Amino acid sequence: MVSFESDYTTGAHPAILRALEQTNLESMPGYGKDLYCRRAKEKIRKAVGMEDAEVFFLAGGTQTNAVVISTMLADYEGVLAAETGHVSTHEAGAIEYTGHEVLTIPQKDGKMEPEDLRRYLQSFFADENHAQMTFPGMVYLSYPTEYGTLYTKQELTEISHICREYDLPLFLDGARLGYGLMSRSADLTLPELAALCDVFSIGGTKVGALCGEAVVFTRGNMPKNFMTSVKKRGALLAKGRLLGIQFDALFTDDLYFSISAHAIEMAERLKEIFASRKIPMYLDSPTNQQFVILENRQMEALRDKIAFSFWEALDQDHTVVRFASSWSTTEADLAALREALG
Amino acid sequence: MVSFESDYTTGAHPAILRALEQTNLESMPGYGKDLYCRRAKEKIRKAVGMEDAEVFFLAGGTQTNAVVISTMLADYEGVLAAETGHVSTHEAGAIEYTGHEVLTIPQKDGKMEPEDLRRYLQSFFADENHAQMTFPGMVYLSYPTEYGTLYTKQELTEISHICREYDLPLFLDGARLGYGLMSRSADLTLPELAALCDVFSIGGTKVGALCGEAVVFTRGNMPKNFMTSVKKRGALLAKGRLLGIQFDALFTDDLYFSISAHAIEMAERLKEIFASRKIPMYLDSPTNQQFVILENRQMEALRDKIAFSFWEALDQDHTVVRFASSWSTTEADLAALREALG
Amino acid sequence: MVSFESDYTTGAHPAILRALEQTNLESMPGYGKDLYCRRAKEKIRKAVGMEDAEVFFLAGGTQTNAVVISTMLADYEGVLAAETGHVSTHEAGAIEYTGHEVLTIPQKDGKMEPEDLRRYLQSFFADENHAQMTFPGMVYLSYPTEYGTLYTKQELTEISHICREYDLPLFLDGARLGYGLMSRSADLTLPELAALCDVFSIGGTKVGALCGEAVVFTRGNMPKNFMTSVKKRGALLAKGRLLGIQFDALFTDDLYFSISAHAIEMAERLKEIFASRKIPMYLDSPTNQQFVILENRQMEALRDKIAFSFWEALDQDHTVVRFASSWSTTEADLAALREALG
Amino acid sequence: MVSFESDYTTGAHPAILRALEQTNLESMPGYGKDLYCRRAKEKIRKAVGMEDAEVFFLAGGTQTNAVVISTMLADYEGVLAAETGHVSTHEAGAIEYTGHEVLTIPQKDGKMEPEDLRRYLQSFFADENHAQMTFPGMVYLSYPTEYGTLYTKQELTEISHICREYDLPLFLDGARLGYGLMSRSADLTLPELAALCDVFSIGGTKVGALCGEAVVFTRGNMPKNFMTSVKKRGALLAKGRLLGIQFDALFTDDLYFSISAHAIEMAERLKEIFASRKIPMYLDSPTNQQFVILENRQMEALRDKIAFSFWEALDQDHTVVRFASSWSTTEADLAALREALG
Repeated sequence: MVSFESDYTTGAHPAILRALEQTNLESMPGYGKDLYCRRAKEKIRKAVGMEDAEVFFLAGGTQTNAVVISTMLADYEGVLAAETGHVSTHEAGAIEYTGHEVLTIPQKDGKMEPEDLRRYLQSFFADENHAQMTFPGMVYLSYPTEYGTLYTKQELTEISHICREYDLPLFLDGARLGYGLMSRSADLTLPELAALCDVFSIGGTKVGALCGEAVVFTRGNMPKNFMTSVKKRGALLAKGRLLGIQFDALFTDDLYFSISAHAIEMAERLKEIFASRKIPMYLDSPTNQQFVILENRQMEALRDKIAFSFWEALDQDHTVVRFASSWSTTEADLAALREALG
Repeated sequence: MVSFESDYTTGAHPAILRALEQTNLESMPGYGKDLYCRRAKEKIRKAVGMEDAEVFFLAGGTQTNAVVISTMLADYEGVLAAETGHVSTHEAGAIEYTGHEVLTIPQKDGKMEPEDLRRYLQSFFADENHAQMTFPGMVYLSYPTEYGTLYTKQELTEISHICREYDLPLFLDGARLGYGLMSRSADLTLPELAALCDVFSIGGTKVGALCGEAVVFTRGNMPKNFMTSVKKRGALLAKGRLLGIQFDALFTDDLYFSISAHAIEMAERLKEIFASRKIPMYLDSPTNQQFVILENRQMEALRDKIAFSFWEALDQDHTVVRFASSWSTTEADLAALREALG
Repeated sequence: MVSFESDYTTGAHPAILRALEQTNLESMPGYGKDLYCRRAKEKIRKAVGMEDAEVFFLAGGTQTNAVVISTMLADYEGVLAAETGHVSTHEAGAIEYTGHEVLTIPQKDGKMEPEDLRRYLQSFFADENHAQMTFPGMVYLSYPTEYGTLYTKQELTEISHICREYDLPLFLDGARLGYGLMSRSADLTLPELAALCDVFSIGGTKVGALCGEAVVFTRGNMPKNFMTSVKKRGALLAKGRLLGIQFDALFTDDLYFSISAHAIEMAERLKEIFASRKIPMYLDSPTNQQFVILENRQMEALRDKIAFSFWEALDQDHTVVRFASSWSTTEADLAALREALG
Repeated sequence: MVSFESDYTTGAHPAILRALEQTNLESMPGYGKDLYCRRAKEKIRKAVGMEDAEVFFLAGGTQTNAVVISTMLADYEGVLAAETGHVSTHEAGAIEYTGHEVLTIPQKDGKMEPEDLRRYLQSFFADENHAQMTFPGMVYLSYPTEYGTLYTKQELTEISHICREYDLPLFLDGARLGYGLMSRSADLTLPELAALCDVFSIGGTKVGALCGEAVVFTRGNMPKNFMTSVKKRGALLAKGRLLGIQFDALFTDDLYFSISAHAIEMAERLKEIFASRKIPMYLDSPTNQQFVILENRQMEALRDKIAFSFWEALDQDHTVVRFASSWSTTEADLAALREALG
């Protein structure tokens, strides 16, 4: 069945599989000390525009969030996130498992507003009893957000300033980073984004890799003995090459960006299809995830022909569902959707 | 450089890469709900000889140990392991990170002796203050052990009986399981081994896969909502297919066993080479890891030509080093070693 | 300075000190195995009207919440609490420190409404992706709430029914239990309350003891080897007698209830004083904590003469502050307040 | 029954009860911000001979160890302790519960030998794979040890030097500190001991208090926002005065030391009694705990008349048992023992 269920329903971009094959018999040290990890890090540093950035590869998105947050927070601190942030909702308590609280800020279209962040911080430190509460220790944003929306450069800059004012590292979860940067609405580049963050991830799993996320520490702030902390969390792959080779391929000839641009193009076409069918969007997403409102009967009928994701019940008769495009979405997929919608 | 450094220095067995390629464009649900995960589980159940076994795929060995142990122990329990057990020493505190203690039992050639286990348990429950101490809640064995040695069927049976007597699940870490079962010294089959355990892992990473371990729960004892607990530990891959496809290939046409048998054959040849050079073995390992004693000068000279692993300093002038074979070890590798040894 | 800052600003009720003195030279086993712990448990079982209730003494309120919640939740579960619940806000992340998430429900006057609880549960299990989220595993209520308000018998019964329907234990935090039960508005007795809960605490610290909370498990559901789990959390006192003797005194001649009734009487008088001064109440609290709205200048002036607690900034010119009565509040204290208010 | 079971079988020294009574009605802020906590800290700083020492009060010994160790270790570190150290054996996994490993060093009469510590550290850092292992991050000693023995000034100085060489804080668990310092064998003073440590505890529970341990940070090294970390672990008492008043009394007129000296005197008398009965000592303890070897029949007979502690089975016919003296041991107790031994 044609699927728009998510951006992780197919395997890897062919260039990645090719790279795995070509290097398969090369003998390399384990645990990320191989040539391809080194090369991939070098290429990422270049793409990010930071010679001194430190890069570490992990296998999955929730793992990345938990490892980064728990190694960067002090004991008495929690992480601030929008109430719809991935760490707040869809990680089965992975942050809490590390002993840290997720402190939530209201959201608007999936985003934390700078003013709400500032209000939280002001009110926390103004509270005479704040020593009895979890200290805010880091700000977590996702770009794009869980609703496919994007922070503007202006918004990100304001949040970054607030973070520096309060001495909080800013962590940007880029599980779908490419789709954000390649969006027609994006008003910042990767180096600009990197300069505003203290640490961010570059998602591979959802952008053409079999698995893998690159964590970029932008200010010489990779936690000491980070590899040991990663091992302690069961997150260190013996064959680190699996991640290095994939990211080396993704950052060769701008593959990461061309994959993302293709998915954005397909997502724009999805929007046109829904508009042509008068199917309302739940919100205006400029990235590869499109949230539409279906009547429940319409949803059930469509389900037999096309795979998509349940998002949430809107009311008794309507459901919000998600359609995602990816590197592997084709014209034929779009045609199948068109036909299924009648 | 020719490498015997470990069994994870090369990529994946070609049949695995082929399978990844052939299935690459198939659209599948995420998180291990795909066809290949299902098929691989079915094949493993068959190989294990247990129709009702529950199988779950994880990415790495330390992760597997931490997930299994922490989800099966009660709050007040720790895991019993030989003092050289992987969980006792080389996992950077991954078990402790989950809030549980590793309780150690003396070792002999890397193995826990049944009598020592029994003594520990007797003495624990005889202690009038045992409520102030961590309860033994599980027994962890590795097969082969960290020293390449193997429990005999007799030993494993005795340990299994003690576990049942004390109502402790027996967990066998099979990170290198194939090399154990295919050893010339092995006196039990996979179904026999499975029947003696409550849970065990079938290592993929070190036996020809890019990554991946299969956890087998043998008695309907997979922890409830296990997938959520896995997610909570950041150990759930979005593209679960990566693991399913690999294990499907490994358990097709006995690939897992033929890979292992090849490595064992190569290890026997390694032994012959060392014997012919009068290089003493540190201990008698019947599996794919061979531990030899090198004079330090000899070690330094060899290092320029052949890669191998430091194990431990024996005395001021000698070092124990490890040579490991794998699916990818070739006649040419052996020849290179022979030449390097002069 | 006369203080209404909290209900823990003075020492212990004289009867408690007397009991400590009278038993001081008696030799007793440690860790709660002494005669007074046994006697206190017996008396609590009687007061609660449950012959089989299991009782355990701990030192403090946050400790009690963390121990109870973390030993009763399954690995994949979190605790549901009102967003103003003590565990949600003022315990510095103590629940998260145990690896579990606090899942929040909207509040009204500090209370969780049964309908909101039901909605949360329905929507959780209706979500097709709920395996990626923390399962609700327990319901936490405080009685009285953090705002001094009380659940009615009707509300508590409804919540209890929902809990049973979903097989969730109901945990009632009774850090100030006596003040709830002795409130003029309370419409349930201790045995009635106990019957509706699976586990609840009887606060000592804030009701006349030096320290100490009694945890009551109402259905043979005290976690196995609970004492070891308590020890593991550093919460087991060597001189367990300190808790046993205090609770024995508190449950002799209804001291717990007479202490509470006195504080309620004093709180009603506080209300009268504020009403006579036209100082508005922030909300209508029927227990020993009274929340009033002061103009900031008025607040600063009063602060020099009387101690009370900052609660939260209401607007630029007004602050919500708390006045608490306790076993030790006297007529003279009230007179001092009256005079200070002018 | 007369009891030598432990040093926590009776209540508190009368001077402590008196202080609790005299201050009972004074109104004080909670959470350790009261006058008596401040005064007690001042007196401890004086006794320790360090004007800048930071002092914090906690309720119990295991709690103290877990709080200190877990707030001072880095994520990738564990604590080094003798294999008989309290944290290694009798705390039900309290350190592991905080996510950290206890790394054990061999013991001799309960003590870690400086050379064994140095060997561990040298071998750890010499291991090429040490990034896969828990880093040693702190050294834990108990003074007196769990076997009542004492480090000499020379030994402690050597260990302290090794710690500084490797940049590891030295933590001395003084749950029974007074009994160590007042021992006839002790060759160092409290200020000398303090100067050798980075952090140490002064036990109250076992030296005359109802509960309470004082933690002393000697080098401006109290972890930042320590109170919040304490709260997070459920270890912050609302009525902090309970600890402050007790330690204020203990450090007034050298009460802590006179209590300890009395117990030592009683312990010396115990030794004489055992010697006169030809009952062999298990080891030579110079402090308030005496370990003797009883024939099992003798042990059973004695048990009916005198309370003491089981320590460990020595062989089939003999058991090691412990007799402890304390502030409340009297001549009459000794006489009763003499009579019971016949």
